[in-house]
Amino acid sequence: MTQIYDKVALIGLGLIAGSMGLAMKKAGLAGTIVGHAKSEATRTTALQLGLVDTVCATAAEAVADADLVVLCVPVGAMNTVAAEIGPALKVGATVSDVGSVKARVIEMVQPHLPNTVHFVPAHPIAGTENSGPNAGFAELFMGKWTILTPVPNANEAATEQLRQLWAAMGAKVDVMEPERHDLVLSVTSHVPHLIAYTMVGVADDLERVTDKEVIEFSTGGFRDFTRIAASDPTMWRDVFLNNKEATLDILGRFTEELFDLQRAIRRGDGDQLFDHFTRTRAIRRGIVEAGHDTSADDFGRAPKKDD
Amino acid sequence: MTQIYDKVALIGLGLIAGSMGLAMKKAGLAGTIVGHAKSEATRTTALQLGLVDTVCATAAEAVADADLVVLCVPVGAMNTVAAEIGPALKVGATVSDVGSVKARVIEMVQPHLPNTVHFVPAHPIAGTENSGPNAGFAELFMGKWTILTPVPNANEAATEQLRQLWAAMGAKVDVMEPERHDLVLSVTSHVPHLIAYTMVGVADDLERVTDKEVIEFSTGGFRDFTRIAASDPTMWRDVFLNNKEATLDILGRFTEELFDLQRAIRRGDGDQLFDHFTRTRAIRRGIVEAGHDTSADDFGRAPKKDD
Repeated sequence: MTQIYDKVALIGLGLIAGSMGLAMKKAGLAGTIVGHAKSEATRTTALQLGLVDTVCATAAEAVADADLVVLCVPVGAMNTVAAEIGPALKVGATVSDVGSVKARVIEMVQPHLPNTVHFVPAHPIAGTENSGPNAGFAELFMGKWTILTPVPNANEAATEQLRQLWAAMGAKVDVMEPERHDLVLSVTSHVPHLIAYTMVGVADDLERVTDKEVIEFSTGGFRDFTRIAASDPTMWRDVFLNNKEATLDILGRFTEELFDLQRAIRRGDGDQLFDHFTRTRAIRRGIVEAGHDTSADDFGRAPKKDD
Repeated sequence: MTQIYDKVALIGLGLIAGSMGLAMKKAGLAGTIVGHAKSEATRTTALQLGLVDTVCATAAEAVADADLVVLCVPVGAMNTVAAEIGPALKVGATVSDVGSVKARVIEMVQPHLPNTVHFVPAHPIAGTENSGPNAGFAELFMGKWTILTPVPNANEAATEQLRQLWAAMGAKVDVMEPERHDLVLSVTSHVPHLIAYTMVGVADDLERVTDKEVIEFSTGGFRDFTRIAASDPTMWRDVFLNNKEATLDILGRFTEELFDLQRAIRRGDGDQLFDHFTRTRAIRRGIVEAGHDTSADDFGRAPKKDD
């Protein structure tokens, strides 16, 4: 495939940066890939795994001469990193990020950037419950959405070039306003994660009483919850602190609905429960039809029938 | 494998009964398998798929001469079915069921059974989001738990024989008191399902505003929620109506914890969020170590690295 950027700098070397490095190398999308992580151990691991070509001890060194700089640090660290790299950026460079919230990242990063660079925030909606440089793999973004949220008056050529990079890494790319992104993701991702974290905590309290029964008999629903709740604590703390408004709005709607179903259970209103559960089945069908998931038994995890 | 029962009657021919029929046939565990479903179309499908050897138009006919009768109907229908089969049961037969709640099923079924039969309630903790006779497959119970909840003074030989049947179908078998079962399952299964149903309903409301964005960008957490929420509405309605006390207890704990995290978000208390999210990771480790799930990337659904 054609090279899209001459020099790319990845700031932060966790799951997403590592996967980007591997994906770009595999497809020959970058001339050189430079990486920076605060921890020397992480930098060494990233080099050994071949996630990047070289590493630098500081973010400012890493971004020097880079045509594309991607901030792959937790959202809470964006402010500090942007302040550090701002003065070192090459004229005409594109700066992007991979944060799960966008409006706050723009607020934190943009003031530190000179007018001579192009800022195109991005959010690859991809991940696993594993984190760190060892967790990366080149196919992480294949068939997943990456959402670009360019700032007003963004340079169209810079946005298009970044779109090409993500598409070449296998992603489907969409463009959205930052605030719309944060609302949509609060319902499709952020609040579901918070709920999973909560339920797993409740189970943990109960576990002490029931002598491991909770873990032994976890399955289906709860098993899925624990997967969600195993995700990176730092990343998720920062998501909730930085998408506060949308999270609280959606949480409010959620508890209203939950209390409504809870009341139906208390009153024994089977019709209301049945109607609600029937309606939610339809959404699932929408997701399967949109090609986001498999309709296979047990979510595609069933044992093979010819075992 | 050795035949365990001469004649088995399956009352209700959905996912669980169909899978039992296929599993018993595959391993030669039953001499004859007779099935009954209210719907003639279901009976025809079950015969065509070979889930059972013969079908009967009434439950009473199906249980005649059966050594094992398994009630595979929704929990809400147990009462009616038990009343119908009670007078037709063979002396010395074992009666069991596969309901997801146990105390209420015992309340509903036991009064209708003559003293000449053995009642050993059971709950296979296995399923998919698909339902109906077409959804069954012989390996559904492989490696999953089945919990037996024998009534006080239950016949030990009858319990042991049923344990052998489930083990021969691939299940791990445990014995538990009915009330303990209902509490444990409320936290590992029932309340997580209710929460998933609720969240998917909230998303559905929002979808009308955001023109399919909710479905397009569903992933990770929300994708798992929609799987859960696609389960059989009738079954789940009956679960909540018949495990009301434990469900409301666990829901109360859940909302307490959720409000605590919500308050931490509102106040910007990152330490509390981080500590909670770190704690939930440990439970996930417990589940992986107990062999209930894979630690593979993206829950084992990631694209192959050598694609």
